[in-house]
Amino acid sequence: MNKPTTQDAFDTPKVTTGPLPGSRRVYTAPAAAPDLKVPHREIDLHPTANEPPLRVYDCSGPYSDPAASIDVEHGLARTRTDWVIERGGVEAYEGREPSPLDNGGATGKYLAREFPVRHKPLKAVGFVPPSPLRGTPPASGGRKDKSPVSSPVYGGGVPDLIRDGGGRSAKRAPVTQLEFARAGIITKEMIYAAERENLGRAAAMAGAAERRADGEDFGAEIPEFVTPEFVRDEIARGRAIIPANINHGELEPMVIGRNFLVKINANIGNSAVASSVEEEVEKMVWAIRWGGDTVMDLSTGKNIHNTREWILRNSPVPIGTVPIYQALEKVNGIAEDLTWEVFRDTLIEQAEQGVDYFTIHAGVRLAYVPLTASRVTGIVSRGGSIMAKWCLAHHKESFLYTHFEDICDIMAAYDVSFSLGDGLRPGSIADANDAAQFAELETLGELTKIAWAKGCQVMIEGPGHVPMHKIKANMDKQLAVCGEAPFYTLGPLTTDIAPGYDHITSAIGAAMIGWFGTAMLCYVTPKEHLGLPDRDDVKTGVVTYKIAAHAADLAKGHPAAKLRDDAMSRARFEFRWADQFNIGLDPETAKDFHDQTLPKEAHKVAHFCSMCGPKFCSMKISQDVRDFAAGKTGATAEEAKKGMEEKAREFREKGGEVYLETGE
Amino acid sequence: MNKPTTQDAFDTPKVTTGPLPGSRRVYTAPAAAPDLKVPHREIDLHPTANEPPLRVYDCSGPYSDPAASIDVEHGLARTRTDWVIERGGVEAYEGREPSPLDNGGATGKYLAREFPVRHKPLKAVGFVPPSPLRGTPPASGGRKDKSPVSSPVYGGGVPDLIRDGGGRSAKRAPVTQLEFARAGIITKEMIYAAERENLGRAAAMAGAAERRADGEDFGAEIPEFVTPEFVRDEIARGRAIIPANINHGELEPMVIGRNFLVKINANIGNSAVASSVEEEVEKMVWAIRWGGDTVMDLSTGKNIHNTREWILRNSPVPIGTVPIYQALEKVNGIAEDLTWEVFRDTLIEQAEQGVDYFTIHAGVRLAYVPLTASRVTGIVSRGGSIMAKWCLAHHKESFLYTHFEDICDIMAAYDVSFSLGDGLRPGSIADANDAAQFAELETLGELTKIAWAKGCQVMIEGPGHVPMHKIKANMDKQLAVCGEAPFYTLGPLTTDIAPGYDHITSAIGAAMIGWFGTAMLCYVTPKEHLGLPDRDDVKTGVVTYKIAAHAADLAKGHPAAKLRDDAMSRARFEFRWADQFNIGLDPETAKDFHDQTLPKEAHKVAHFCSMCGPKFCSMKISQDVRDFAAGKTGATAEEAKKGMEEKAREFREKGGEVYLETGE
Repeated sequence: MNKPTTQDAFDTPKVTTGPLPGSRRVYTAPAAAPDLKVPHREIDLHPTANEPPLRVYDCSGPYSDPAASIDVEHGLARTRTDWVIERGGVEAYEGREPSPLDNGGATGKYLAREFPVRHKPLKAVGFVPPSPLRGTPPASGGRKDKSPVSSPVYGGGVPDLIRDGGGRSAKRAPVTQLEFARAGIITKEMIYAAERENLGRAAAMAGAAERRADGEDFGAEIPEFVTPEFVRDEIARGRAIIPANINHGELEPMVIGRNFLVKINANIGNSAVASSVEEEVEKMVWAIRWGGDTVMDLSTGKNIHNTREWILRNSPVPIGTVPIYQALEKVNGIAEDLTWEVFRDTLIEQAEQGVDYFTIHAGVRLAYVPLTASRVTGIVSRGGSIMAKWCLAHHKESFLYTHFEDICDIMAAYDVSFSLGDGLRPGSIADANDAAQFAELETLGELTKIAWAKGCQVMIEGPGHVPMHKIKANMDKQLAVCGEAPFYTLGPLTTDIAPGYDHITSAIGAAMIGWFGTAMLCYVTPKEHLGLPDRDDVKTGVVTYKIAAHAADLAKGHPAAKLRDDAMSRARFEFRWADQFNIGLDPETAKDFHDQTLPKEAHKVAHFCSMCGPKFCSMKISQDVRDFAAGKTGATAEEAKKGMEEKAREFREKGGEVYLETGE
Repeated sequence: MNKPTTQDAFDTPKVTTGPLPGSRRVYTAPAAAPDLKVPHREIDLHPTANEPPLRVYDCSGPYSDPAASIDVEHGLARTRTDWVIERGGVEAYEGREPSPLDNGGATGKYLAREFPVRHKPLKAVGFVPPSPLRGTPPASGGRKDKSPVSSPVYGGGVPDLIRDGGGRSAKRAPVTQLEFARAGIITKEMIYAAERENLGRAAAMAGAAERRADGEDFGAEIPEFVTPEFVRDEIARGRAIIPANINHGELEPMVIGRNFLVKINANIGNSAVASSVEEEVEKMVWAIRWGGDTVMDLSTGKNIHNTREWILRNSPVPIGTVPIYQALEKVNGIAEDLTWEVFRDTLIEQAEQGVDYFTIHAGVRLAYVPLTASRVTGIVSRGGSIMAKWCLAHHKESFLYTHFEDICDIMAAYDVSFSLGDGLRPGSIADANDAAQFAELETLGELTKIAWAKGCQVMIEGPGHVPMHKIKANMDKQLAVCGEAPFYTLGPLTTDIAPGYDHITSAIGAAMIGWFGTAMLCYVTPKEHLGLPDRDDVKTGVVTYKIAAHAADLAKGHPAAKLRDDAMSRARFEFRWADQFNIGLDPETAKDFHDQTLPKEAHKVAHFCSMCGPKFCSMKISQDVRDFAAGKTGATAEEAKKGMEEKAREFREKGGEVYLETGE
């Protein structure tokens, strides 16, 4: 049971395709770039609704489009590569030769099959990648001696980057979305992302101003209509990012920032004890089907490189990773054996593959480690504890911190966005908002400014475990010290006492912090703290986090958010059961639940439900009230409103009298 | 499928018994009344924890105590009846003779078996119950003619209640907890409830003041230690209630109020289309096993009377009902055929059975009905729509409103608490916080004062569907207009777009409103809007709402709440897997999830989990950090703290220097 089963990794991943029930994937062409095909989903409503199809945001990629031909062995079309090349400033090169170490030394039947197609990587013109490490990995099984070690050298020569004094490589061409934004250039990625935020509409939709005014946005500046220029401006200010590695040609770009729809991330990844390449590719496809805006591949163990390649080549959403995980595998899991060179080589490896954002735990400084010593749960971030261990073993400042500018230079050359990791996030209610956590956050603020100066896009990771009354302080401090760079939080979990239900303990915190201004919410599945999520857990996690994100959008007054709630409510009032299922986040589960009590097809049009039964229905009575108010049968809400205004005046006038008449 | 299956109703209900994993039901004797046996649950921890068993609040009743003999045919022991009788002011009487109409006219094999034991009801001395209605029900199938009708008369004479000018029956003895509290009398119920809130401790526990100070309670006055006198005072002020009908001798009393632990309610109930008596009794036992503090029996259809009797005689928690549901069945589901007499007779019927609180929708005034006409989802409360229909059909003020004082007189005579229903609660995000909802809330405020004057205990029901940014306004308004009477809310759901997941959409709102001051949260199950909850749904709903309630307790700074989180976190840090399962709200699911990835018994003591695998563990590294800080192996958090303080000072002093040394 403990042995990884890699047999499946040799098979072609089978992925879920086809539309969601009652839905179609549709495309619009933005006015600013009519050659783009920007995807949305349209939900068809019952003819009696007299409503156009309901359009919703779509992250599912071509998999939900029956017209798209899906060949997982070939990967998705690399449409975006053309945009990158036509902008210029990039060049293809041979790239780093994969080493057996990249797959943890897996061989023979334990080695996952390579992705069949190899694309030459692109890099910014003028950027000189360091030479790849060569040589043999340390003996399998790791050192028994736990004393601090000097850096093992596997590699050859390591040329310096070409630098100018201002921090950017002197001759490197600008390639990041931030650099373009600052230069006043609106990229196709920006146009594409704006079109998605607007659900393909050409102008602000009816009622947008009212809906926005109805919310409480805590100082955000959500527009009624998202122009490409607005996206550019938000990126230029560092207040939003478009995670879009120049080597991720399969990407359908999206924007993350507090003035846009709240996004969610789903984590996948094989580990030392479970799961295969095939499972991971399908998990990615499955996660985006239900609404994952980005996916993080948190694989550990063997086959990390090959697994990631399969995922990237088939992913229309940004892929994030934590490069230190793979670097650790390259030194056999011995944190103190990590070196800057091994790490740097891993960054190049992953940047060339097309990873869109890297979690970098550069805020875990040596000086902060002792601050965690008296915590109830110590350091719970895997990356954070790796770096803490390294710092203690060498009694040196973290190489992620000392080499931070070097990291920036590499990431900028491929436009990999930073996700500055919260390695000291609290792992329990007891440790929330403590000195270690906030010390790190302040450092992340400093690093944000350095990364910005280097042309890198940045978001900031946040906790973790936080009781409700301490959530807002996290958001406020992050906004203050990180210059409004997008906040990306895990939950937070609002209590520790419900293992098996941590998607719920954390959805509470996620909805709140999303409302307060967090731009992206990292999902938590029911298996958190207990095991690795399976297919059902991934779906539950994604749907739960779509709820949190949408609740946040509603509360912030996002102009488009309420349209879907209102469509659902009208369907409810009119007993359009199939519409209720299809408008919801999970049509299959909703229909299944309804069928458990009222299974017949006739019940899908029945004007009653199992709660009150056929004889009595509050919705029916509400229609009576409407009819009464309007003085006619089958009155609409609008007609009822007119009649109601008349009657309300009348009733208010004699309200007191009615009471006196019949009271005692 | 639509025909009710009542076959099972003839069998003896099979209920779930036995302790939760790793737990024992224990009892303490309060100093103020050593004859009482107040229940708690103790969770045994692994010997390496060096911790006493963790004590938690327990609502499960004798069912979880292997020493208790459970005989569902006989019901639970009626211990509390002795307390009621020894206080005096009550008398047993013959009571109302059940009528076939009480069970919806069910006969033969469709009639659920009567509960085998009959207890004479108690009433307050001096209260004269109105004569029961006699005569035949209207012809089955209801009237075809839908025109307004005059009140049908089934009954005989209807003696007036004996009243004085002050509103209380002149000769009625005081029997309500409110009346005792005002008279300065501390009842056994108050002592019992206080003991539960303190988890049986004799004094404030260590750190209580700090934990309280750490919270944000929005003006609540949560004490560090709950004395019986504090309970009495809160009840006297109307700020808390102990729902405890004098005829519910099986009750283990509990207190509901913003200065106590946040409670949750679980709804059960058969309906016209599904479920049997047997199922409902087991649902009650099942709901309290997982933490339901009260249970509402929302049965509709036939067999309501007999179902309720089985539930009450076997319930250690307060039972609430919505009497208008049964009254409606007595007039064949035709709202306009309802009369004050039918309703009054139903109140007596249910009060004699021992129902602890009644939802009374007396705030749905004729004048407010038109305010709902232009809503997206109209009136969604079943009780609210029944009364709205009645008001419109007769064009008269609601009889619940005009007879409100009569209702008070009946409820006070048995100490049935009011749950003033929010019949105009919003059923969609679109309708939240509208004029209809708030008009009704103001009327509920007026009615609260009338009920208090009559000696009745009162809580107030709240919405419903409310986006996050509109939740606090509900709480603030309720506190302002209802004199801090306990608020009891359904959710609220924070978005409409996730049928199948409304336990989650609503847990977000429930946790928040609980934090803001709501005293009891009515659960929502995954089946909400779709069907009737089954056993699994009830469990999911209860556990989800325990999460919301506990998250609220933590945020409010309830002195006892964090103990359980901290115990869990220590178990996590020390890899006590069985303890993690058992401390959680649902040990079975947690263990099952863990087993799915790491099934072996050895893994229950393994110092790793499936997330990172055996080679690497952040918790292990955290222990290394502790050891480093303390300068010794196996250091405790306390030892680490001392060492850390030293090191932190040292590091802070040279923090900048470290950066300069190794940065570039």
